[in-house]
Amino acid sequence: MDIEEANLTLSRIALKTNLSEGPEGIGKILRNINNIKGIPIHDLSKAVSIPVPVIAAIRKEMEKDGLLTRDSGMILTHLGESLLKSIGVSGKKKLFLDHGYIFPNFLKDIKLDLEQIYKNRPEPNFSLDQSHVDSVTAIMRAAYLYHHDAVEGRKILLLGDDDLTSIAIILLSQELKMYPKEIHVIDIDSRILDFIETVVGKTEINCKLTNADLREPMDEDLRSQFDVFFTDPPYSINGFKLFVSKGVESLKNESGKYGFINFPFRPPDETVEIFNLMNHMGLALQEIINGFNSYVGAQIYSGKSNMIRCVTTFNSKPLYIDKSLPIYTASRK
Amino acid sequence: MDIEEANLTLSRIALKTNLSEGPEGIGKILRNINNIKGIPIHDLSKAVSIPVPVIAAIRKEMEKDGLLTRDSGMILTHLGESLLKSIGVSGKKKLFLDHGYIFPNFLKDIKLDLEQIYKNRPEPNFSLDQSHVDSVTAIMRAAYLYHHDAVEGRKILLLGDDDLTSIAIILLSQELKMYPKEIHVIDIDSRILDFIETVVGKTEINCKLTNADLREPMDEDLRSQFDVFFTDPPYSINGFKLFVSKGVESLKNESGKYGFINFPFRPPDETVEIFNLMNHMGLALQEIINGFNSYVGAQIYSGKSNMIRCVTTFNSKPLYIDKSLPIYTASRK
Repeated sequence: MDIEEANLTLSRIALKTNLSEGPEGIGKILRNINNIKGIPIHDLSKAVSIPVPVIAAIRKEMEKDGLLTRDSGMILTHLGESLLKSIGVSGKKKLFLDHGYIFPNFLKDIKLDLEQIYKNRPEPNFSLDQSHVDSVTAIMRAAYLYHHDAVEGRKILLLGDDDLTSIAIILLSQELKMYPKEIHVIDIDSRILDFIETVVGKTEINCKLTNADLREPMDEDLRSQFDVFFTDPPYSINGFKLFVSKGVESLKNESGKYGFINFPFRPPDETVEIFNLMNHMGLALQEIINGFNSYVGAQIYSGKSNMIRCVTTFNSKPLYIDKSLPIYTASRK
Repeated sequence: MDIEEANLTLSRIALKTNLSEGPEGIGKILRNINNIKGIPIHDLSKAVSIPVPVIAAIRKEMEKDGLLTRDSGMILTHLGESLLKSIGVSGKKKLFLDHGYIFPNFLKDIKLDLEQIYKNRPEPNFSLDQSHVDSVTAIMRAAYLYHHDAVEGRKILLLGDDDLTSIAIILLSQELKMYPKEIHVIDIDSRILDFIETVVGKTEINCKLTNADLREPMDEDLRSQFDVFFTDPPYSINGFKLFVSKGVESLKNESGKYGFINFPFRPPDETVEIFNLMNHMGLALQEIINGFNSYVGAQIYSGKSNMIRCVTTFNSKPLYIDKSLPIYTASRK
């Protein structure tokens, strides 16, 4: 296959599957199949940050074009390999960088404590886009907040907490003997609040719980009160806008107050939209950590999401919310 | 000291020193001095991502207020400690997370090769905001590009290359036997191009060199040509806008083409401005890695900057540049 035909093939498949990542995204999929022969669809989805159903559609097109066969997983045909060669890609991936935030070994005991607590937690309610992080992620979230001085002496608001990050923060506070001033959980699902109450009731931590729908106006006593907000919003743009906007509304009207937002990779155009919303709220990005969060079970986004850390400016403000818009991905079907 | 007085003190110092990070930034400085007693001003600057001259002004105010004394470095007085206690901060930092991208051991030989080459490199021209990264950073940049499939088979443009990242990419290509299709360096400083030519002349790599000022219109044959751009722009907003905009102009008009931008932490309001520019160019943020780059020698930003990775969308476009505006920080004095 010559280079022109290779590029045409990539473009044609991208167009046919309406892929927002373009021909570049198709090339990325081919490279990854070439790197790990027989790669399962969920692993491929994780590697290229493209949802499983989209990959399935692309796989079908590639099979039609004779680029791909399936054995136990996906394998390139000679034609697929020849396409890669003509765009200058030789073969295996020879370099993989280790990266990320490393779980501190001295926290393994509280990880076990958390796992004990998890045994009795409420099951996820998928209609609310609930999906639980694993225990390592929950502890790492708490540790990450500590690392950035966002716990000790702080008033922290969690907007939605089916992940029980609040409990991880409390366990870590007790371990370090460095306490938040207040930890406040707001959730639409009273089962979660009840569960947190039974766990935290045994401690001296100042923990407040509010049962509310974020689409409704926020209680006066939650506005302009907090040093830190933390959220893992529904994975729609409206969900992101709503949860982050309410987070901004909850923070003190000062520069440098913290927002921690957990959100998966989205297609490039939606990604621009998401960071546009953050800019409009006057939130200054500090860090984006790929794959910080691991979720239990198989999901459309393959069980990984990014941690986004930001701080307020003097001009931070919540955005207008049209509360009739759907926010849960389940409601978008 | 009671909490009200503590908060007033933080606000007063923030106002007096015109600190864009606000009272939160003053608190952060106090926490860090408390964590590492006798901390040198450059280390403190690095820890809180605030430039050294600004820290010096804040130190002066804190001394006036009796919060701080100086011995070999900065130390809190009893009053300073009491302020922290009243905002709920107990004492030492008990948790530090290891993070980042880990240097692969098998690349240490090419790191040594690069250091040999560095011995004869041109001295930095500070009027052009040149400042060299260390050899580990240069190799890690190349490795990071490989990790993200931004080298093999790619046409890569480096906008400014006093860091000699091009040479690191070439050394790594030879090591891995996975080659870029083209590596192109554009620089205003012909000394750098001459130096790269002497090094690359001995290889088979397709390396092109263009001596040009990015403030001038870009050559036709550099526009819409590349898969990847890489830049470490001057640390002014105009510098960022100019270099990144030219990077976008150089990329093929497709979704998913790569931009790698190296830039230090700025105050929150400037940070919003910077990511606003990226949004306006239609660049989708993928990752922000804190402290990825280490620079040789002491600088105003304490020798560290972040790696920002982004990809194009279908709507990516360069911005209008007012070429009369200063772009180098030296010219802003």
